Amino acid sequence: MLKADLPLEDKQRLDAYLGNVAKKTEELLEELLPQPGEGAEESQLFEAMRYSIFAGGKRVRPTLVMAANDILGGREERGLRVAAAIEVLHTYSLVHDDLPCMDDDDLRRGQPTCHKKYDEATAVLTGDALLTYAFEILTDEATHRDPKVRLDLVHTLATAAGPMGMVGGQMIDILNTHSGATDMEQGALARLQRKKTGALFSACCEMAVQLNGATREQRGRLTSYAQNIGLAYQMVDDVLDETGDRETLGKTVGKDKAQAKPTFATLLGVDGAARQAQFLCAQAEEYLSIFDDRADVLRLLARFVVARKH
Amino acid sequence: MLKADLPLEDKQRLDAYLGNVAKKTEELLEELLPQPGEGAEESQLFEAMRYSIFAGGKRVRPTLVMAANDILGGREERGLRVAAAIEVLHTYSLVHDDLPCMDDDDLRRGQPTCHKKYDEATAVLTGDALLTYAFEILTDEATHRDPKVRLDLVHTLATAAGPMGMVGGQMIDILNTHSGATDMEQGALARLQRKKTGALFSACCEMAVQLNGATREQRGRLTSYAQNIGLAYQMVDDVLDETGDRETLGKTVGKDKAQAKPTFATLLGVDGAARQAQFLCAQAEEYLSIFDDRADVLRLLARFVVARKH
Repeated sequence: MLKADLPLEDKQRLDAYLGNVAKKTEELLEELLPQPGEGAEESQLFEAMRYSIFAGGKRVRPTLVMAANDILGGREERGLRVAAAIEVLHTYSLVHDDLPCMDDDDLRRGQPTCHKKYDEATAVLTGDALLTYAFEILTDEATHRDPKVRLDLVHTLATAAGPMGMVGGQMIDILNTHSGATDMEQGALARLQRKKTGALFSACCEMAVQLNGATREQRGRLTSYAQNIGLAYQMVDDVLDETGDRETLGKTVGKDKAQAKPTFATLLGVDGAARQAQFLCAQAEEYLSIFDDRADVLRLLARFVVARKH
Repeated sequence: MLKADLPLEDKQRLDAYLGNVAKKTEELLEELLPQPGEGAEESQLFEAMRYSIFAGGKRVRPTLVMAANDILGGREERGLRVAAAIEVLHTYSLVHDDLPCMDDDDLRRGQPTCHKKYDEATAVLTGDALLTYAFEILTDEATHRDPKVRLDLVHTLATAAGPMGMVGGQMIDILNTHSGATDMEQGALARLQRKKTGALFSACCEMAVQLNGATREQRGRLTSYAQNIGLAYQMVDDVLDETGDRETLGKTVGKDKAQAKPTFATLLGVDGAARQAQFLCAQAEEYLSIFDDRADVLRLLARFVVARKH
């Protein structure tokens, strides 16, 4: 089973950091996202974008960006724009993943998913709009003065999210689900999840590096850290899908099992997957050994990943 | 009704230009798009991307880019990369538009649409992958040496395709279809189509300008030209949907009418819409008056838009 909660002091410190990043990212998104109303005929699209973005969520990816940005001595307002762009992109992937033809989920964070709140056409377009808008946010001069840096950010996000990254991982996942491939190898599942979740986690740290510059070693360690906790995050998700309840998780549970979909919990067992996640997070902390106490938030985040209950 | 065909000589000249752009854009896309096979588990995604891209099409947007690029004395290989990115983005919009929850089309250019050839989940992901990949293509150094130029290209494409542009137009279109708003005003339909089709047409010329630099006047005239022929193109589409047959068009016809969807043909009548398209294209040619005979392809393209039969 998953490790007990974090010690109270650590938990409070991480909660404060997560809460602050969530608040500031959401304030920025409030300002950045297109405003419904004012006679805009596409108001429903703008509303659905906001509905999907402001449905809650721990804002783990923004936290990863901001914590890496802090380690590298970056400016907050630049980090926040990158955090906002990544959260917008991540939200697009949730909206499309929830569609009836994909994972067919009615609930997300305890709220009706976009296609339940509106309709399927609106959900397809909302995902498309968010994906495109993530790039628009990055191209703005407020993200970084140097256009070369902004271009690098766009390149990193596009590569992580595209056919060789997140969308490719999602394709493999869907094919496995539809074919009922229960006997998938652990290695194949890890490869899938490195694309589906790991690519974007890794991009969070890569983009913080691009904003601020870093040595080759710092860069390698931060992105390895992110890959590890991305994979561990997915393993814990799989464990919670087996052991959690709908109320705590705010989403349909037991679904992967019902679909006979291979997960780390089915391949390694609940305990095996939890142990593997702990190992990955311990290894992730090791990667941080060259950094001073400014990396404490990332250390706590690695522990939080395996201690989280939802 | 639509004007008779172009004079034979003009037709041959334009056909040669369109054919050459199509061939070179497709050769580049063949090289750029991810390769299926080689043990890639996401092969189905890569195949579906290629299936959707290589299903034919006149490659009007690439032609617009290349013709504007020629006028401004641009290098062919740079123009072609922008042309390829725009065609990839345009193809994403077709794949998602054809989905059952959107326009629900089984045929596109005489071939099964992506979700008919594969399945809905694959079509959603294929669109997502193409959209993301369009930005990846633009960020590559081969597109232009100067990162500032590449960033401007990304910005233009994201703005044209995003919530304030193409996706927004698509949202308004879907809302009209679903609400059966047959009494839409002509002005509202033109606004919708300026977003849905016009924004990307205009971006073709804008991006050619960004590749090469241009005076303010050249820029204004080229993008106004593109807006006009984009709108005219849609009007002719509506006319052909009323008067064409499935075999010539390679798609389901009479569909807008069956859905009681407002089109330029239903609002202005078939003759009215055809006349309006001719007016817009004549005006588009006027915008080109400051350019020498290097603008002849764009002049012919404006005439082709109203003379086309499919």
